[in-house]
Amino acid sequence: MNNAIINNMEITTVNESKINSVDFESIAFGREFTDHMFSCDFKDGKWQTPKITPYQPLTLDPSARVFHYGQAVFEGMKAFKDDMDDVWLFRPEDNFNRINISAKRLAIPEFPKEYFLNGLSALIDLERDWIKKGEGNALYIRPFVIATEPAISASPANEFKFMIICSPVKSYYKGKVSVVFAQDYSRSANGGVGFAKAAGNYAAQFYPTSLVQKEGYQQIIWTDANTHEYLEEAGTMNIFFRVNDTLLTAPTSDRILDGITRKSIIQLAKDNNVAVEVRPVSVKEIKEAAKNGSLKEIFGSGTAAAVSPISDFKHGEETFKLEEQEDSYATFFKKKLTDIQYNRTEDKHAWRVKVEK
Amino acid sequence: MNNAIINNMEITTVNESKINSVDFESIAFGREFTDHMFSCDFKDGKWQTPKITPYQPLTLDPSARVFHYGQAVFEGMKAFKDDMDDVWLFRPEDNFNRINISAKRLAIPEFPKEYFLNGLSALIDLERDWIKKGEGNALYIRPFVIATEPAISASPANEFKFMIICSPVKSYYKGKVSVVFAQDYSRSANGGVGFAKAAGNYAAQFYPTSLVQKEGYQQIIWTDANTHEYLEEAGTMNIFFRVNDTLLTAPTSDRILDGITRKSIIQLAKDNNVAVEVRPVSVKEIKEAAKNGSLKEIFGSGTAAAVSPISDFKHGEETFKLEEQEDSYATFFKKKLTDIQYNRTEDKHAWRVKVEK
Ligand SMILES: Cc1ncc(COP(=O)(O)O)c(C=O)c1O
Ligand SMILES: Cc1ncc(COP(=O)(O)O)c(C=O)c1O
Repeated sequence: MNNAIINNMEITTVNESKINSVDFESIAFGREFTDHMFSCDFKDGKWQTPKITPYQPLTLDPSARVFHYGQAVFEGMKAFKDDMDDVWLFRPEDNFNRINISAKRLAIPEFPKEYFLNGLSALIDLERDWIKKGEGNALYIRPFVIATEPAISASPANEFKFMIICSPVKSYYKGKVSVVFAQDYSRSANGGVGFAKAAGNYAAQFYPTSLVQKEGYQQIIWTDANTHEYLEEAGTMNIFFRVNDTLLTAPTSDRILDGITRKSIIQLAKDNNVAVEVRPVSVKEIKEAAKNGSLKEIFGSGTAAAVSPISDFKHGEETFKLEEQEDSYATFFKKKLTDIQYNRTEDKHAWRVKVEK
Repeated sequence: MNNAIINNMEITTVNESKINSVDFESIAFGREFTDHMFSCDFKDGKWQTPKITPYQPLTLDPSARVFHYGQAVFEGMKAFKDDMDDVWLFRPEDNFNRINISAKRLAIPEFPKEYFLNGLSALIDLERDWIKKGEGNALYIRPFVIATEPAISASPANEFKFMIICSPVKSYYKGKVSVVFAQDYSRSANGGVGFAKAAGNYAAQFYPTSLVQKEGYQQIIWTDANTHEYLEEAGTMNIFFRVNDTLLTAPTSDRILDGITRKSIIQLAKDNNVAVEVRPVSVKEIKEAAKNGSLKEIFGSGTAAAVSPISDFKHGEETFKLEEQEDSYATFFKKKLTDIQYNRTEDKHAWRVKVEK
């Protein structure tokens, strides 16, 4: 192992990479991790010296608060490799800002920006060989914070661990997605934590999602918890509806995650003269649009899949199928977005950030 | 260490107890743990052999799902020692049933009843010296389940760990509690996980609670997320209102935890000819009752404090103070309940369960 202190970070690297033991062709999402990880402890009222170390297990007391009270938040981002072997991040400061927005709502101390950005670059630089070229290939990056303090009173922890782990991923393409519009279960309420990437938001969706999966659907599009009349977002994606040539998407709120892919698509739509309406979208109008033929497409947006076309949806006992579109917006925006991410095109909003060697 | 296999459980005990290093007089809630813990892993589709081992840290991969998606549930219960040194649990099967209700909602496999009850008795039997006699002293027992599978796709885990850890506690009495009726933040929604002891429900309350604490209040009484017009429960307690000589408490629902203390108090009220109404309780009626003098008491009910009297409350800019009552229901029900728990009285509903030697 090699040790160094760089940018106030303690860096310990592995002697030998495990990369040759990984079959990149048949990799499953989020099950293989790279050689190193970033971690930083919060203790005595402050974030301590950040570290990069070999990827290794954590040792925690059974009373660590994360196990009992779900005091944990996370982010999801990706690094891409271009044809010249340069590595790029996509809007990383937005992920940094968002993890601190999530942290605040979960009573977790905010993480310093330079620790995050320096740690991220140093870690991704170390792992560049794990990033393969080619459409769909990427390094999925998972920053997260957990409450480590060993105490089970129901109050915020005083000790935390911030970490970044990385997992090589292939194209997420799994065929089209069929969805159910939620009518009974709900994901988040006004005044709740739906806008945060809070750990507990995700486990809460597993059971309702398993029920629709038994019926052959993959995901739920959540509706507002009060009336179930307005379409909000999916489990890990924001949602766009194309009615004739206009894109509709719900406004962000304290119930809906402010997705980075969503806001990039809204911007790209403006750049490309596609009309976008950011406003409450009702189940009723989408069903009517499906019936009268004006509903052309539905697609999800998120870091994992970029853009994920939806082929059909169910609401109550009614099912609806969406026709393939020749001029698909899903395809159009996926290409616009990934062209920027893989450095195949101009990047006029400066979303791409190079990982320096 | 001593090893044995009893009731299909592997039991390894410590050579020497750490009990003498514990200052029982100045113990803080949930920071000291006993010598042993119970654990059982779910793997390959089934719960494996349960174990009792020395209390020790857990080693988990940084990708364990509990850290990312909050897939975790827990319970809270107590063991009490009577004057003859016998140890008693209170309605333990209700905690068992409830952890499985919580588990189901969080897509966690249900735990077998005999594993739970045998494990619990064997563990508490080993730790009897940690339970001190005398009002308020007890062993707080924390069963919990966490998703341990190392994989960060947003889907339910296939590997879990069920554990029981124990913490000696003193009387919870900390003076009266002052509360704020929630108006902006919310705890749970219809179709959500509020009725479950899901880890994420608790972290979600920390930040709003810290805001009221800055104003000198201790807790929030949550209202319904839709309208904030109905009073539901506190962070770790159900809530009772005494208007004249009638007790009011909200009905359980998918937003409210079905508290064991709450239902015991409802039963004790019936046994003692105290009128109870289980129905939605509006903020408006409680404020009016406070103004016209018919609101005599508010108290919380829960395992930690049994009964916790509330001295004053705030709603918006209005504050209300509750007078001391000579014939306090809070005091009456606390005594009725703890008399049963500490084996000082008849137990006609068979709530008490002796821990056999
Ligand atoms: C609930 C939720 N909505 C939407 C998204 C999409 O957000 P982004 O585009 O930033 O990945 C995610 C994934 O991060 C999510 O977890
Ligand atoms: C949200 C919530 N409500 C109420 C209670 C009280 O329930 P019990 O009386 O079973 O302890 C608890 C504690 O368990 C709780 O966490």
